[in-house]
Amino acid sequence: MSTLPSKELDVFPNPKPSRNYTIRIDSPEFTCLCPKTGQPDFATIKLEYIPDASCVELKSWKLYLWSFRETGAFHEAVTNAILDDLVAAINPRYARLEAIFNVRGGVYTTVVAEHGGR
Amino acid sequence: MSTLPSKELDVFPNPKPSRNYTIRIDSPEFTCLCPKTGQPDFATIKLEYIPDASCVELKSWKLYLWSFRETGAFHEAVTNAILDDLVAAINPRYARLEAIFNVRGGVYTTVVAEHGGR
Amino acid sequence: MSTLPSKELDVFPNPKPSRNYTIRIDSPEFTCLCPKTGQPDFATIKLEYIPDASCVELKSWKLYLWSFRETGAFHEAVTNAILDDLVAAINPRYARLEAIFNVRGGVYTTVVAEHGGR
Amino acid sequence: MSTLPSKELDVFPNPKPSRNYTIRIDSPEFTCLCPKTGQPDFATIKLEYIPDASCVELKSWKLYLWSFRETGAFHEAVTNAILDDLVAAINPRYARLEAIFNVRGGVYTTVVAEHGGR
Amino acid sequence: MSTLPSKELDVFPNPKPSRNYTIRIDSPEFTCLCPKTGQPDFATIKLEYIPDASCVELKSWKLYLWSFRETGAFHEAVTNAILDDLVAAINPRYARLEAIFNVRGGVYTTVVAEHGGR
Amino acid sequence: MSTLPSKELDVFPNPKPSRNYTIRIDSPEFTCLCPKTGQPDFATIKLEYIPDASCVELKSWKLYLWSFRETGAFHEAVTNAILDDLVAAINPRYARLEAIFNVRGGVYTTVVAEHGGR
Amino acid sequence: MSTLPSKELDVFPNPKPSRNYTIRIDSPEFTCLCPKTGQPDFATIKLEYIPDASCVELKSWKLYLWSFRETGAFHEAVTNAILDDLVAAINPRYARLEAIFNVRGGVYTTVVAEHGGR
Amino acid sequence: MSTLPSKELDVFPNPKPSRNYTIRIDSPEFTCLCPKTGQPDFATIKLEYIPDASCVELKSWKLYLWSFRETGAFHEAVTNAILDDLVAAINPRYARLEAIFNVRGGVYTTVVAEHGGR
Amino acid sequence: MSTLPSKELDVFPNPKPSRNYTIRIDSPEFTCLCPKTGQPDFATIKLEYIPDASCVELKSWKLYLWSFRETGAFHEAVTNAILDDLVAAINPRYARLEAIFNVRGGVYTTVVAEHGGR
Amino acid sequence: MSTLPSKELDVFPNPKPSRNYTIRIDSPEFTCLCPKTGQPDFATIKLEYIPDASCVELKSWKLYLWSFRETGAFHEAVTNAILDDLVAAINPRYARLEAIFNVRGGVYTTVVAEHGGR
Repeated sequence: MSTLPSKELDVFPNPKPSRNYTIRIDSPEFTCLCPKTGQPDFATIKLEYIPDASCVELKSWKLYLWSFRETGAFHEAVTNAILDDLVAAINPRYARLEAIFNVRGGVYTTVVAEHGGR
Repeated sequence: MSTLPSKELDVFPNPKPSRNYTIRIDSPEFTCLCPKTGQPDFATIKLEYIPDASCVELKSWKLYLWSFRETGAFHEAVTNAILDDLVAAINPRYARLEAIFNVRGGVYTTVVAEHGGR
Repeated sequence: MSTLPSKELDVFPNPKPSRNYTIRIDSPEFTCLCPKTGQPDFATIKLEYIPDASCVELKSWKLYLWSFRETGAFHEAVTNAILDDLVAAINPRYARLEAIFNVRGGVYTTVVAEHGGR
Repeated sequence: MSTLPSKELDVFPNPKPSRNYTIRIDSPEFTCLCPKTGQPDFATIKLEYIPDASCVELKSWKLYLWSFRETGAFHEAVTNAILDDLVAAINPRYARLEAIFNVRGGVYTTVVAEHGGR
Repeated sequence: MSTLPSKELDVFPNPKPSRNYTIRIDSPEFTCLCPKTGQPDFATIKLEYIPDASCVELKSWKLYLWSFRETGAFHEAVTNAILDDLVAAINPRYARLEAIFNVRGGVYTTVVAEHGGR
Repeated sequence: MSTLPSKELDVFPNPKPSRNYTIRIDSPEFTCLCPKTGQPDFATIKLEYIPDASCVELKSWKLYLWSFRETGAFHEAVTNAILDDLVAAINPRYARLEAIFNVRGGVYTTVVAEHGGR
Repeated sequence: MSTLPSKELDVFPNPKPSRNYTIRIDSPEFTCLCPKTGQPDFATIKLEYIPDASCVELKSWKLYLWSFRETGAFHEAVTNAILDDLVAAINPRYARLEAIFNVRGGVYTTVVAEHGGR
Repeated sequence: MSTLPSKELDVFPNPKPSRNYTIRIDSPEFTCLCPKTGQPDFATIKLEYIPDASCVELKSWKLYLWSFRETGAFHEAVTNAILDDLVAAINPRYARLEAIFNVRGGVYTTVVAEHGGR
Repeated sequence: MSTLPSKELDVFPNPKPSRNYTIRIDSPEFTCLCPKTGQPDFATIKLEYIPDASCVELKSWKLYLWSFRETGAFHEAVTNAILDDLVAAINPRYARLEAIFNVRGGVYTTVVAEHGGR
Repeated sequence: MSTLPSKELDVFPNPKPSRNYTIRIDSPEFTCLCPKTGQPDFATIKLEYIPDASCVELKSWKLYLWSFRETGAFHEAVTNAILDDLVAAINPRYARLEAIFNVRGGVYTTVVAEHGGR
């Protein structure tokens, strides 16, 4: 039944480029597959950024995250890849991507990557 | 990449059938698809039951829930269907299935179904 | 800009009428107006019911609650009216409507009404 | 500066006397004086009742509780007195008054009184 | 320096004997000594009772609990003894004494005793 | 029924201009409309500022926020616009405006804008 | 290094056999081994009982639970076995044993068994 | 009945003036009157300071805060006035006064003022 | 019955003196007496330090804190005295002592003292 | 039954060495033995590090921590030893190891060690 959306991020012009301000978008419904076992992984993805010329459109961000649903992804690599895609799309003055993965084997893993200084 | 497991539930003999006791299994990682929009839905599935001759095997229960990942399912129907599958597999003295769905459109939905009396 | 939806509730056939089961729908975004002062009131509306022949459609319930946005409504009366509208639409075996209003004048008010026995 | 309001409770007709339903009013700002030391006491007053012919008006309940601000009152007596005043004003089918007093001397005291059966 | 108060409980007449109502008194500062090791034990003592002719005076209850400070006391025995002392002093219609002891050896112990029916 | 108040902010003289001090005002009852769908949005608006010559009057701030009730507003734009209006009214030494929007499409969005340095 | 204690439970005479009262003992440090994989499992063991002639000695209960450290044990079986051992040792008027196991494979399991009526 | 204490603060010599250390005193029972409506306001007053030659005596601080019970006071002004009184009494090396007022009109207000650097 | 231990602190050699690392020890069971009234006071004592040549032995720290059980002690003075005793015993590179006293007269007091820089 | 795994840490190449990013791994299931009494100790081990050329493999980290199950270990020493083993295996740009031990004798101990600067 499922046809996954493409990994395209829509953007719109920053309504207040003269000011440094922060946008936080928390998505507790990220899921991908473990590349070793093929079993589902789950995470909360927290994005925080200071826009420059463009902002990321919210629905587009939701669909982008959804597109990983049938993708095999390691924790460390996928966190950096999502941040790279965001930077390619909107080139923010600053961005921080935090991926809080669900417990596996009694172990809780979180990966946090930043782009630019604050 | 994903090949979903079949909807088979493994069982094992109840180690203490002479006693009425309760087993609770909470699974916060249930996901299916909305039949109207095709978009992902997420839920926590809480099962509580008093076994008769058989218990449901934990890993099998996890795989069973995982098998809904690419299935379109309405909240009310899928909750009753999961309970029906459990009853068909182990015929428990009592069972209660609670599905706590993630918020959609500002609305939080939970469905609770029971089988047998307590 | 706002054109409020009509107070119509859509229904669909109960997928499991042979079983008594419970549906809970929590809506933390109810707002109406105070009939005395014209100022906004806010509430969380919690519905819990056992369906008979029909269930209330979720999006329709959201729009129904939204339709009170420009209506003057007393706490006690509006809670009973919402329950009456639900009963008229789906005639459930049991229903419970709880309206948890935001604090006003240092006072927190909640109204709880039931229809049928459990 | 302070002129305390009189201990008068305003009422209004129950909008749904054909149904037994519950009204809860929580007031975390009750204060009176300790009859022994003259020092201030503080409490949260929780009222829950099933109205018969009348309901108590919310602003009037707030002013009524405020009227104790300069009154000396023992914990056990004042809880019963407030419930008696409510019963005299609206004669509810059921009422429950819970007074949760702030800690004094390392001891936390709560008094709960009921009128009628539920 | 310390001179412990005597184990005397002061009482006062119940201001509303015609009504069954409940008084709860929580004391998180109970301490006694372990009879085996002589080391300090700590507990929260929760009393809940329905008074008959008399109520226990709050300061007196605080001093009574304080009087155990240098007493060796087993968990199970001291909980029942405190309840017995309360019953001897005020003969309540109902009483419940809960002693929640601090963790010892990785184990959390609570003892709950009741007098009369509710 | 509703006649929205104008977007006017009342001010009063800072009672202690010789000291840098901070005023925080949290308003959990902000609601506007989504410019795309016309459906209601909800947010908590947190203001924190260091006053210079003037402070914003609390009731006026409440009415100002209420005036957005029938206005279409994007998250990023409306947060910056509210901060701009505050700066125009009282020109504070520092101000921080945080808008925490309710979840939409499984995504939680917050926008934070500052004026001046701290 | 480790020499596990024997599975012996020490008891002492109930200090108040004339009263039905409840003893609760929570032990968050239970660990055994998974019989399939040999990997460690962890659980919180909650015991609640009404003693008859004897009570279980606390340190002995701690050592008893510790004795499972190198034992392979299924969730359902070990919970019933612990309850059986307690009943054999003190024959309580009522007992309830709840084993809350740590998450495994995204699934949280709890087993609850009772002996006698309350 | 009430005779308010005078606004006098008692002090005692700092027992360790050679060290910079911090004293925090939280008082959740502050109440004054609204100068516009005459109705009661409530706040938690949090004081934090580094003493120089003197410390403020705790009971005296409690009575000082109590003395506002029948005083009309604006949020911003009273917070600064309390800090000024403390500075006049003990001239601390640093002080911070935070007044967290109860919600009024759906709005939560907090005022924070500091004296000296840390 | 009680014979208090002496105020002696045992120490052991720092197992990793080449690294600056932090040890935190929280003791929620500190009790002493109020020098004015002779009544018990209670506090949580939180110690945090960076060891130099020696560490404080845990059981010895527990006994040291217990030795205050029958000592009259002012909040501000006893906090500084405990820190001084620790410094005398192990001369740490940094230490922080926080004493969180139980509420008295509606007022919560905490004292925090530091030794050395971090 | 138990055969403990060896203390070997598997590593894999850092997928994004050009960026300083943080990996956090929380393990609430660490257990070792007290070297004095031979009784079990329990801790939550929190690791946070910035990888250089290599990352530690998650399952290997779980097995490494499990290998302490029958080892006698002092709190301060074992925390530093685990950090040393991690540094030897992956030589991270920064690492922080926090061991939060379960309460013993009413005392809660935490040890925190860092390697490199942040």
